[in-house]
Amino acid sequence: MMAGETRGKPIRCRAAVCRKAGEPLVMEEVMVSPPLAGEVRIRIICTSLCHSDITFWKLKDPPGCVPRILGHEAVGVVESVGENVSEVTEGDIVLPIFMPDCGECTDCRSEKSNLCSKFPFKISPWMPRYESSRFTDLKGEVLYHFLFVSTFSEYTVVDIANITKIDPNIPPNRACLFSCGVSTGVGAAWKTANVEKGSTVAIFGLGAIGLAVAEGARLCGASRIIGVDLNPDKFEIGKKFGVTDFVNSGNCGNKPVRQVIMEMTDGGADYCFECVGMASLVHEAFACCRKGWGKTIVLGVDRPGSMLSFPSFDILHSGKSLMGSLYGGVKPKSDTLILLKRYVDKELDVDKFVTHEMRFEDINKAFDLLIQGKSLRCVLWMDK
Amino acid sequence: MMAGETRGKPIRCRAAVCRKAGEPLVMEEVMVSPPLAGEVRIRIICTSLCHSDITFWKLKDPPGCVPRILGHEAVGVVESVGENVSEVTEGDIVLPIFMPDCGECTDCRSEKSNLCSKFPFKISPWMPRYESSRFTDLKGEVLYHFLFVSTFSEYTVVDIANITKIDPNIPPNRACLFSCGVSTGVGAAWKTANVEKGSTVAIFGLGAIGLAVAEGARLCGASRIIGVDLNPDKFEIGKKFGVTDFVNSGNCGNKPVRQVIMEMTDGGADYCFECVGMASLVHEAFACCRKGWGKTIVLGVDRPGSMLSFPSFDILHSGKSLMGSLYGGVKPKSDTLILLKRYVDKELDVDKFVTHEMRFEDINKAFDLLIQGKSLRCVLWMDK
Repeated sequence: MMAGETRGKPIRCRAAVCRKAGEPLVMEEVMVSPPLAGEVRIRIICTSLCHSDITFWKLKDPPGCVPRILGHEAVGVVESVGENVSEVTEGDIVLPIFMPDCGECTDCRSEKSNLCSKFPFKISPWMPRYESSRFTDLKGEVLYHFLFVSTFSEYTVVDIANITKIDPNIPPNRACLFSCGVSTGVGAAWKTANVEKGSTVAIFGLGAIGLAVAEGARLCGASRIIGVDLNPDKFEIGKKFGVTDFVNSGNCGNKPVRQVIMEMTDGGADYCFECVGMASLVHEAFACCRKGWGKTIVLGVDRPGSMLSFPSFDILHSGKSLMGSLYGGVKPKSDTLILLKRYVDKELDVDKFVTHEMRFEDINKAFDLLIQGKSLRCVLWMDK
Repeated sequence: MMAGETRGKPIRCRAAVCRKAGEPLVMEEVMVSPPLAGEVRIRIICTSLCHSDITFWKLKDPPGCVPRILGHEAVGVVESVGENVSEVTEGDIVLPIFMPDCGECTDCRSEKSNLCSKFPFKISPWMPRYESSRFTDLKGEVLYHFLFVSTFSEYTVVDIANITKIDPNIPPNRACLFSCGVSTGVGAAWKTANVEKGSTVAIFGLGAIGLAVAEGARLCGASRIIGVDLNPDKFEIGKKFGVTDFVNSGNCGNKPVRQVIMEMTDGGADYCFECVGMASLVHEAFACCRKGWGKTIVLGVDRPGSMLSFPSFDILHSGKSLMGSLYGGVKPKSDTLILLKRYVDKELDVDKFVTHEMRFEDINKAFDLLIQGKSLRCVLWMDK
């Protein structure tokens, strides 16, 4: 179609719809409405698969819901814009990012927060500005959104608060990783923890997020990066990302992981990152943290309702701190561009995250690979 | 007695002994051994009463124990020193501080920690360097130590790691407060939280520690200091310490405290300090903290075994951090002197903490006043 021909009209295109929690996505034709005021419709160039997609795909209870279009790591081109949108125009290459950045609220104007107050991040079935969907199936039934971006569709509508315009020369199969995984992991080391040069870092879970933390810690100048994982193959993989030491948490003899790390580090790691989403692992990470100044950063998305519990004395007497990090503390519209610049400047290496590339219609294979721990990132191309 | 006459010999003197948990202290004569290598024997000039003395006085189970000499806020004069002690000499005015500072370990050499690794802080019945006591009663029975300093005695033996030499011109009934309460509260704002100028602070519990946090926050330039307490009289008291707003947590109508503070601050306080020692209040403080950057600092000493529990999502999605602070993050031998200097320079006002002064033998009256919430600090003079 010629540029502009679809403007203001619904677009019929392919999407991978989650019809039932935990069952294969259904590749079907859907209708994508034009953007409302403050919104942007984009054509997805490629999307990659992140573990949070799987977490919510499996979730039978709210905030899980069906039918829904999942997906939140992608890059696209602006097809058309709604009223009051001047930040991007048709043809711009953009990242849809699940964290809104309105640019106006106290948080968005502050250097210290990446949690927009105007459009608070939440696991909602709707768009952030209006409690409605831009998707229907061919029977007219509403399809729910996911994380404000729903990228498992050839076209999607995204609020301008969730759009970051990027350098069009960046390869799409690299750029897409910055809309979630790479920014989350690298940012957690850089922005949330502010890892000091020469420090020791322990990373619990060497999936893509954990490896991105390693990459971030390496960039910050950490001198020792300890990876902890049940899968011994992860050490060889981790080495490429700066992991210097490995603890096989399934095979520590009779020692608990905390004891192994305490001994390795003579008292604990300066920074511990939990990248799996398991309360027990957060507790382990906190225990492995250096008293006096250690920071434990929670990145993993646990099941809703999961609780973290610490003896009051361990908090009071340890001098440690506990914090969470959403999108790595990265401000979507400014910090993401700094990270992309570091990629362009070849400081930050993201090539090694992309272990698989396939056609969009093979998305269920990509799910299988990630669930089986066989892929880090699988990029799905819409047009191939 | 002439200086030096007691050196190397046991000293017989008065002490207030906790013979049974929760029952009045018994004023009796005890024997205080000479200091061993690395230790210092000091004559207490005055001691004040801190809420932690009450907490451990009440405690029937370990780490509670009897017979014990409680007390940990005091100032004294060096009577004699053991071998290998060159840092202080007889006649020096010193603070016995319950937090060891060996000066040699990684923590003591780091600017980031005040948790000595050589002599880890613990609730022990013994001295830090040797698992033994320097006190016996007149029947020869061992009396246990408390917090390494046991200041409810005319003489006590303290490790040199727990001794800070101070300017002898500082009035003793002010200096003593720096060995726990004032340093803990002011330090929590200054060192642990690093309160920013113009920020908003909420303080849960306006006892001496909470009021010292207010004083510290005021010194750091906080523009709004919200006090939260069940006792409405605390607002008038708090105003003298810089408290600008008051929330009567027992009388918020139907609103929970978190809602009141959220509304007052348009989204939460930048820093919340829990100064009571109640898990539920830590949860409330965390909830009152500004998303995106809020810090919750735990100062209150809860009963052993008490647990802090947070939904995993609240940690992950909030951008808040949780940390503990022991002795306010203050380094006993260096930072304490900075605080004392600020007192001498009339920046930090501690006069208003001392609501009562009495003779040492009236110590049980001082306990009653503190338990009834009628005093902030009661100074007990040994010689009056």
